[in-house]
Amino acid sequence: MSDSTTHESVSVGELGQHVGQVVLLRGWLKNMRSSKKLHFLELRDGSGVAQCVVFKGDVTPEVFALAGGLTQESSLKILGEVREHPKQKGVYEIGVKDLELLAGATDFPISPKAHGTDFLMDHRHLWLRSTRQHAILRVRHAIIQAVRNFFDSRGFTLVDAPIFTPNACEGTSTLFETDYHGQPAYLTQSGQLYMEAAAAAVGKAYCFGPTFRAEKSKTRRHLAEFWMVEPEVAFMDLDGDMQLAEDFLCAIASHVLETRKPELEALERDISKLESIKPPFPRITYAEAIDILRAEGHDAKMGDDFGAEEETVISSKFDRPVIVHRYPAALKAFYMKQDPANPELSLCMDVLAPEGYGEIIGGGQREDDLGRLEHMIDHHQLPKEAFEWYLDLRRYGSFPHAGFGLGIERSVAWICGLPHVRETIPFPRMLHRLAP
Amino acid sequence: MSDSTTHESVSVGELGQHVGQVVLLRGWLKNMRSSKKLHFLELRDGSGVAQCVVFKGDVTPEVFALAGGLTQESSLKILGEVREHPKQKGVYEIGVKDLELLAGATDFPISPKAHGTDFLMDHRHLWLRSTRQHAILRVRHAIIQAVRNFFDSRGFTLVDAPIFTPNACEGTSTLFETDYHGQPAYLTQSGQLYMEAAAAAVGKAYCFGPTFRAEKSKTRRHLAEFWMVEPEVAFMDLDGDMQLAEDFLCAIASHVLETRKPELEALERDISKLESIKPPFPRITYAEAIDILRAEGHDAKMGDDFGAEEETVISSKFDRPVIVHRYPAALKAFYMKQDPANPELSLCMDVLAPEGYGEIIGGGQREDDLGRLEHMIDHHQLPKEAFEWYLDLRRYGSFPHAGFGLGIERSVAWICGLPHVRETIPFPRMLHRLAP
Repeated sequence: MSDSTTHESVSVGELGQHVGQVVLLRGWLKNMRSSKKLHFLELRDGSGVAQCVVFKGDVTPEVFALAGGLTQESSLKILGEVREHPKQKGVYEIGVKDLELLAGATDFPISPKAHGTDFLMDHRHLWLRSTRQHAILRVRHAIIQAVRNFFDSRGFTLVDAPIFTPNACEGTSTLFETDYHGQPAYLTQSGQLYMEAAAAAVGKAYCFGPTFRAEKSKTRRHLAEFWMVEPEVAFMDLDGDMQLAEDFLCAIASHVLETRKPELEALERDISKLESIKPPFPRITYAEAIDILRAEGHDAKMGDDFGAEEETVISSKFDRPVIVHRYPAALKAFYMKQDPANPELSLCMDVLAPEGYGEIIGGGQREDDLGRLEHMIDHHQLPKEAFEWYLDLRRYGSFPHAGFGLGIERSVAWICGLPHVRETIPFPRMLHRLAP
Repeated sequence: MSDSTTHESVSVGELGQHVGQVVLLRGWLKNMRSSKKLHFLELRDGSGVAQCVVFKGDVTPEVFALAGGLTQESSLKILGEVREHPKQKGVYEIGVKDLELLAGATDFPISPKAHGTDFLMDHRHLWLRSTRQHAILRVRHAIIQAVRNFFDSRGFTLVDAPIFTPNACEGTSTLFETDYHGQPAYLTQSGQLYMEAAAAAVGKAYCFGPTFRAEKSKTRRHLAEFWMVEPEVAFMDLDGDMQLAEDFLCAIASHVLETRKPELEALERDISKLESIKPPFPRITYAEAIDILRAEGHDAKMGDDFGAEEETVISSKFDRPVIVHRYPAALKAFYMKQDPANPELSLCMDVLAPEGYGEIIGGGQREDDLGRLEHMIDHHQLPKEAFEWYLDLRRYGSFPHAGFGLGIERSVAWICGLPHVRETIPFPRMLHRLAP
């Protein structure tokens, strides 16, 4: 392509600003169809897909023949004039003047026909090129942007929690272990304890990074490696925590709706379900949740924990996320604050997503009384020595505080309407999946 | 404090909006001094530090006595009137009307006197409360915001790279290993290979997450766990890569200068050094860098790699970051593209920070020729099977592309003017440091 340097190189997403101009595009062939005098090439470059029309009369015989023989995922350089689609407003196409094959692609493994999940997962590095995966990646990105914007605009300081932790505080069964220069280290399952130290320093803190679970479970909700955001706020109580979670989820939903509607449509998501994520969220006690389960014919009794099935039944009663608070202390971690109104209960809360997507947020107010916290560490038979630094936070200016954790992949599954978390992260790590 | 519920709860950072009003503050005692009729309490709450004046005539004798006996890091609730500081414009103080001790603090380990580094590191969870650490945390946060804003505003898609990787592609000596359900897995050292797959899908991709090095080195530049951002762009060459790195570093410096000047001042950073981070950055070849070293009396010869000492000498010749490009291929990774003008060289580049802060960016154009890449994998004696998925990117629509990696902690050290990376991350992990 001899005259390519004299023309501006643009992306498909920018075509609307170049109508009537001759521009240069680079990308990959997504699909094509041909007639005797025309080839319609669908060119994708990451910013969008443009139809490039090769008319026999507009190009040399060599270029017309080259266009006719192109295969899926070949990389191309195309010179052509930008014009608005004759029938679709806001859609632009290219009248091709010249075309160069940068690199061919023979027998691209993923054709438009259906493939099995294992096959697609084995080719994840190529599967990402599909419209569907592209849409999920962009919604995931928007959710992460919304998360950071939300906390940054409210005066939170990002305080990254460590990945390597020295103690297997709650048993090693679900921890990944590594040899850290001669001593065992474990990959973090939560940054919360560190965020409590951070809240005493900066008032409002959050961390956002990967966390790890070595669970043997093979369900549609579990990954070995997943991202979690965890805010922690000094002088906030359980009510404030529930309010923060509600504001937060509403901000995520509205940011995605504002910026990623085309992607949600590509995923065939029922957008009305997302539009109803508005305040106020229903707030029910654990005891009321048990009542709902019983009314629906479930054999639930006080003290039972909720699994995926119970969460689905409870959430199905509401059109938006439901906050369940004050679970029995016996079901929750040692650091949850006792309910002063009922010592059997914790000042904790879970947020269940609608449509059966399960728990997406777990959190609560933390025990800030040194003596009670020491008692709980004892009661849970945890090694007190490992928690001395954490107890320091109660020794030096203890303070009421609360926070929560939101799992990104479950949130992506919910917002995108995906039945399985495996597509919610670019390179999923599951029980039997460590590659590519 | 009986009437506290009738007054608005505000943070120190918001005091300017409440001059003349009686408000409620919560925080920790940073410092205090007293005279016969006055106690001056410095209250910190994460959003700032406010002087709270307790005048004997304004409070009950019990409250005056309580205030006089407060210890460092006690947590407090203070009711008082907001007034502008009589001498300092924009500084507000509190005329205390009532005060409640939430929780005491006896013998807080970190007093205003000097402490050794090991002692402070052992008390990292409390050390974070200091003005200096608070300033570093906030600059770090601003750098991370600038990173994300930069790529998000330029149409990049965030594509998180995996932490667990299946192959010890380049030897296990600096890799952390874990047992992944019966097979070995290694913690990532770079997301780059995955970003190359992502660039073919979305055009412009970046990842941003923790990376890991099991190096035995104990230097002021090394951490076992550090955060890295890695952009990768389809159809970009080495020149474009250098331009992107320059734009990127300028955007980081200007965002920090715009939003974190008080913190830089608290760190006694020479701000003029940051103000000179402006385009254009000098660009020199590796050969020219060797010339500089020789002219400075160093015994450098073609083919030598640069260590901390050499980087300091080279960067000291410039008042802003310097880009060194086209190193000998033998010094660089297998995936670097051969320079068509000289097959002994790579189309790679490093960016060296000024003032001796060393390499903060490394990157370059990637080999996009399947045959040459296979040859390099062979030449480096790497297991070809582990790279089959990566080679697929050259089999199906290969494309010129380039990218780089920026280490966050070294950037924080540079921007804040810190001699050691250990303070650049909230909870550092080093050779002999895994706690708290």
